[in-house]
Amino acid sequence: MSELKFVDISEISNINIFGRMGKMRRPLPLLFNGSAVEVVITGSDLWIDLETDSDFHEPWVAYEINGAFMGRQMLLPGEHRLCLFRNMEPTTPKRVRFYRELQAMSEDDKCKVLVKGLEIDVNGEFKEVPKYNRKIEFIGDSITSGEGSYGCVTDVDWLAMYMSASVNYATMTAKELNADYHIISQGGWGVYCGWDNDPRHNIPSVYEKVCGLATGPSNEAMGTQEPYDFASWQPDVIVVNLGTNDITAFSQPPILNPEDGKMYKQRRNEDGSLNREDELKVEGAIVNFLTMLRKHNPKAHIAWCYGMLWCDLNMTITEAMSTYREKTGDTNISFFQLPNTTEETVGAHMHPGRKSHENATKALTNFLRIQMGW
Amino acid sequence: MSELKFVDISEISNINIFGRMGKMRRPLPLLFNGSAVEVVITGSDLWIDLETDSDFHEPWVAYEINGAFMGRQMLLPGEHRLCLFRNMEPTTPKRVRFYRELQAMSEDDKCKVLVKGLEIDVNGEFKEVPKYNRKIEFIGDSITSGEGSYGCVTDVDWLAMYMSASVNYATMTAKELNADYHIISQGGWGVYCGWDNDPRHNIPSVYEKVCGLATGPSNEAMGTQEPYDFASWQPDVIVVNLGTNDITAFSQPPILNPEDGKMYKQRRNEDGSLNREDELKVEGAIVNFLTMLRKHNPKAHIAWCYGMLWCDLNMTITEAMSTYREKTGDTNISFFQLPNTTEETVGAHMHPGRKSHENATKALTNFLRIQMGW
Amino acid sequence: MSELKFVDISEISNINIFGRMGKMRRPLPLLFNGSAVEVVITGSDLWIDLETDSDFHEPWVAYEINGAFMGRQMLLPGEHRLCLFRNMEPTTPKRVRFYRELQAMSEDDKCKVLVKGLEIDVNGEFKEVPKYNRKIEFIGDSITSGEGSYGCVTDVDWLAMYMSASVNYATMTAKELNADYHIISQGGWGVYCGWDNDPRHNIPSVYEKVCGLATGPSNEAMGTQEPYDFASWQPDVIVVNLGTNDITAFSQPPILNPEDGKMYKQRRNEDGSLNREDELKVEGAIVNFLTMLRKHNPKAHIAWCYGMLWCDLNMTITEAMSTYREKTGDTNISFFQLPNTTEETVGAHMHPGRKSHENATKALTNFLRIQMGW
Amino acid sequence: MSELKFVDISEISNINIFGRMGKMRRPLPLLFNGSAVEVVITGSDLWIDLETDSDFHEPWVAYEINGAFMGRQMLLPGEHRLCLFRNMEPTTPKRVRFYRELQAMSEDDKCKVLVKGLEIDVNGEFKEVPKYNRKIEFIGDSITSGEGSYGCVTDVDWLAMYMSASVNYATMTAKELNADYHIISQGGWGVYCGWDNDPRHNIPSVYEKVCGLATGPSNEAMGTQEPYDFASWQPDVIVVNLGTNDITAFSQPPILNPEDGKMYKQRRNEDGSLNREDELKVEGAIVNFLTMLRKHNPKAHIAWCYGMLWCDLNMTITEAMSTYREKTGDTNISFFQLPNTTEETVGAHMHPGRKSHENATKALTNFLRIQMGW
Repeated sequence: MSELKFVDISEISNINIFGRMGKMRRPLPLLFNGSAVEVVITGSDLWIDLETDSDFHEPWVAYEINGAFMGRQMLLPGEHRLCLFRNMEPTTPKRVRFYRELQAMSEDDKCKVLVKGLEIDVNGEFKEVPKYNRKIEFIGDSITSGEGSYGCVTDVDWLAMYMSASVNYATMTAKELNADYHIISQGGWGVYCGWDNDPRHNIPSVYEKVCGLATGPSNEAMGTQEPYDFASWQPDVIVVNLGTNDITAFSQPPILNPEDGKMYKQRRNEDGSLNREDELKVEGAIVNFLTMLRKHNPKAHIAWCYGMLWCDLNMTITEAMSTYREKTGDTNISFFQLPNTTEETVGAHMHPGRKSHENATKALTNFLRIQMGW
Repeated sequence: MSELKFVDISEISNINIFGRMGKMRRPLPLLFNGSAVEVVITGSDLWIDLETDSDFHEPWVAYEINGAFMGRQMLLPGEHRLCLFRNMEPTTPKRVRFYRELQAMSEDDKCKVLVKGLEIDVNGEFKEVPKYNRKIEFIGDSITSGEGSYGCVTDVDWLAMYMSASVNYATMTAKELNADYHIISQGGWGVYCGWDNDPRHNIPSVYEKVCGLATGPSNEAMGTQEPYDFASWQPDVIVVNLGTNDITAFSQPPILNPEDGKMYKQRRNEDGSLNREDELKVEGAIVNFLTMLRKHNPKAHIAWCYGMLWCDLNMTITEAMSTYREKTGDTNISFFQLPNTTEETVGAHMHPGRKSHENATKALTNFLRIQMGW
Repeated sequence: MSELKFVDISEISNINIFGRMGKMRRPLPLLFNGSAVEVVITGSDLWIDLETDSDFHEPWVAYEINGAFMGRQMLLPGEHRLCLFRNMEPTTPKRVRFYRELQAMSEDDKCKVLVKGLEIDVNGEFKEVPKYNRKIEFIGDSITSGEGSYGCVTDVDWLAMYMSASVNYATMTAKELNADYHIISQGGWGVYCGWDNDPRHNIPSVYEKVCGLATGPSNEAMGTQEPYDFASWQPDVIVVNLGTNDITAFSQPPILNPEDGKMYKQRRNEDGSLNREDELKVEGAIVNFLTMLRKHNPKAHIAWCYGMLWCDLNMTITEAMSTYREKTGDTNISFFQLPNTTEETVGAHMHPGRKSHENATKALTNFLRIQMGW
Repeated sequence: MSELKFVDISEISNINIFGRMGKMRRPLPLLFNGSAVEVVITGSDLWIDLETDSDFHEPWVAYEINGAFMGRQMLLPGEHRLCLFRNMEPTTPKRVRFYRELQAMSEDDKCKVLVKGLEIDVNGEFKEVPKYNRKIEFIGDSITSGEGSYGCVTDVDWLAMYMSASVNYATMTAKELNADYHIISQGGWGVYCGWDNDPRHNIPSVYEKVCGLATGPSNEAMGTQEPYDFASWQPDVIVVNLGTNDITAFSQPPILNPEDGKMYKQRRNEDGSLNREDELKVEGAIVNFLTMLRKHNPKAHIAWCYGMLWCDLNMTITEAMSTYREKTGDTNISFFQLPNTTEETVGAHMHPGRKSHENATKALTNFLRIQMGW
């Protein structure tokens, strides 16, 4: 066993950090699925020191060595020392990425993953980390949270263990394109409302905060509710994969919003088509969100990429995008349909499985290569 | 060798005829790619009697037995007796479909394929043909004409032999869904103009005629320029796969239209985006075409299915569809993006190859099954 | 239409001829499936002049342009002028391979395909043809005759149209490896006996003749029954794909050999295992055939490649190969198992379909690349 | 959080135990990769209590819920309480399999995984576990130890973390066939000698002991070196995947066996072929091993399944099998070649990756279904 030295996360300069960060850097919170630390080190052993907390939804983490998936586990509340590798050839640099599997958890105020530091050989060194010349921001719902990417097809519980960044088109696409990436996503949420008509569950309402999804005293102390510093990380492309819950809401019962005491319900006409008034609410939300995205990301290409769980909001999304384009003259946007999930590619509780994420990755990678001239 | 009897095509009642027909039924013209006759017969042998003509672009035909591709060949001008099978077990019914591979040929006035009749065993019988309970109309350009579905990746000649109905997503989709189908397509044409800006090369201008693409005295004598009797065949779905040439025109030099002596050119802005005025011409054409389609097919679901050769007209097509929907209140339309052709799936002269047509078929079949409740 | 000139096949020096040849070269017989002529020409048009004959089993032919399949058709007895292409860009060299689809037909004495010559533009020229630095001989049964590679899964007639060289692992493998190749194969035949126990139906008995499978006055006049000149074409590898019919014989009823008036039957023991005496007959035939192959092909690597229609003769074949190796000290042989045909890959009448031939090609190509250092 | 009760492993009767067992059952050692406990429980939470030890090669474990992979991690020496799920719907039965990823570790005397018991809800119950009506024993080397099934293609360290039962054709095949299974495998070992010529590294020498690979006081105290009770578990099929290291030895330098002070080296002839004397040593070992397998498994079908890392020992293995068959009259054996690993399917340090294991599973499953009439 090698002799180890602890290096505080704040003291590591040769490091790639994936995912949005707020003011808190010591310890470093991994706020979203896909949020990660990546280092390249020499020495035979590597450990990571963590602190985690949670209530119902315990965080899951995973890690890879030299780009290959190695381990995945849940972390219950407490302090953790995880060994990421042992007894490796000490002089060969090893690239390790340690990341959060679980989405930012709007339903568990205590849920958090904090990286305190790494333990490496006393003679080990932090080497240059890879440079990613492309930056992609993924904004989405359960699909982008990797829901159902783990678990049996017949599983129906709604649990942290079924979500991931490891089996996820966002991660796969970023890797395929050698890109740095951020994920901002939440299962059940939409651009206008949640799958159950809840008008509070819309991503735009949290987009401008560091991690608006993470609430409660513990999270707020980390600065999650503070304004995000968009200047700190300007993506080349923003992939918006929203709409799946907005369309679902049209087939769900009304819901009471306790904040204003009103009932909310997206309606359908008798012939099954969308009630125009309600459809326009979704479109209004899309126009506003595009406006918000543009405000904070003046140069990014915005690609609305939708369709992994059916595409029946195509006409609505594109109409809104046309409205936005007409209104603003902004032509730096595009619509791209992702391949639908089928019986052969489905994962747990009717969500995309590994094969569907791989198909989406193939299509999206081809799209971005052409669209962006990459 | 069996003794054969000739049966005039007009006397065969147990027959499926694929593709649009005009007034002329004896002999029966096969006007489009995919236009076909299908019979189920007993007896050991089957021959088909044809008359064909052409100038530069000779027609190609193919046939299948019991649903399996068997032969494919060119037909030079003249009378033909083709043996479709010999020496088969006589009592077993054999299903045979004989079809035109080559699109309706707007550039060859003489090009035609006429079926005069079949020759079967003197003891052979025409049995019940399969019933197809679904009907799909495919409207398209070179992609739907199967251009490049045959031929080497490096081939660049523009020739009849590279086009097909046999390796074609339209045919494959119809088969997969057990549907009757029509194809109306022309390589190089668009919804507003041709790939080279020629405003005459738009599909809507020929849609209302039996086969407006087939001109010249010989074709006109067959009634190709007469109004098509839409009541005779009402599709459940119309798949419109147009736009690929309309977007190409924006990158091509101006063209002189000899009919009005004017120059035509779809322009781009300096930043590469589409000139709004010209984009609106395309959109106007789409709105008008949707209106025309609806007029003649009041109950059909109209699905604009686009993207096999890149998808950069997505925003334009969907904006026009929204305009049409807003204007008419017609919600029985949808937009569906087809999978892009890649290096691995490309065929001859940069068109979709077999693998691309198979991928499109898989996606489109899944779409139609869900969209149509099939 | 270009003005054409006829060039006698014997006068074309820039030509690749695929398949075994005998003394007759004018006209040139295409004796086996895969037997072909290949030229590279300039000029806009190309025709081929043929003479064919047959009784029950009419020959089928196919052709490709620049390596891509273009047409396939039956040829009934008579003289034929087939146009292989028209109106192509005249200065670009076009590579065309015209080939026989149908195996050498042991059951149709009249069956033949003779190439008399080509017709090319008066200004067209024969250019250098590709050089193939590798040579492979394929020896097989119905699998190598491409039986069932065309036709519907439910088809059961035994007909010429279901066989091919176009959808055939032998052709595909040769192309993938850029190799010249010969096919010697016959449906229903084995290394020791036919599928029905007929001891006359063994490939070794015809191997040493030009085309021992083709009998009757017409064929014999072409020299098919004369000794083959092995020195004229020495393969680098001999792929023997035999055994499928030998094992089938063990489950078939006895058969009377009219030549000696005796009954023949490969027997199984009560527990279903092979009768050892009969198994050793197969092994003896294998040892003798290997000896014969080695005699005529002293340097060729001999690879017994078996298993596309199940692999239950593995133990028998390899035992015989070991016996041969022990006896002769010849170690330049190998055994390679090909992937089995499954429900997903089957073609007509329970034979390998296109997908199975593709799978076999992938495996065999990988094997030959490594085994031969290619 | 539910209230939990501890249940000793020895008290759980509704349990499936995978892998060989010796006399020690409390706690229960998981001796091989794929060795597992499987239960079906109600209640919301499940924990497993373990004790592990190791020196250089720490054990890895993984688990699945309802058949789907969920987590994978290393275990350093000590006592462990691992939570396998939390907060699941309590009344629905959950099937959980917890298994060892790391092979029996001949190079780490301390390496062990002991299951002490499970903790379930106080109201949770053990339900009927699935019955597996088929039993397969897999005997192999690094391939069957899943070496390189995890890790980057460029990784070359020889470490526990790269091996697995989770990405392994043996596990996948057993699952596909709904079979109980045992794995007995060791990286680098052969049927006659190890990859480096070490004659001690042959699987037959350890086959008759419970887990002859696991030595040292701690392992021996668990009974690993005691004779295995073959009567306790009689497989329907034995899949022997050995030979890859035996052939490698022919290309490696000599090695000194410290036990007898002699040098060992499998030789090649000058032309590269195998020295016959040395080849016969391998064959002798195969004959003896088949005899040993038959002695202990009188009714099992023995299938030698080889070829995932090239197949150049085919002739040797099959010759030995023929010798065995001839000598014993035992025909209940077969040889089946597995698909080779290619550039597209390779995993870490030149071993089969996930795709190669999937291909092998597909081929082997098809083989066993037909061979065994399953």
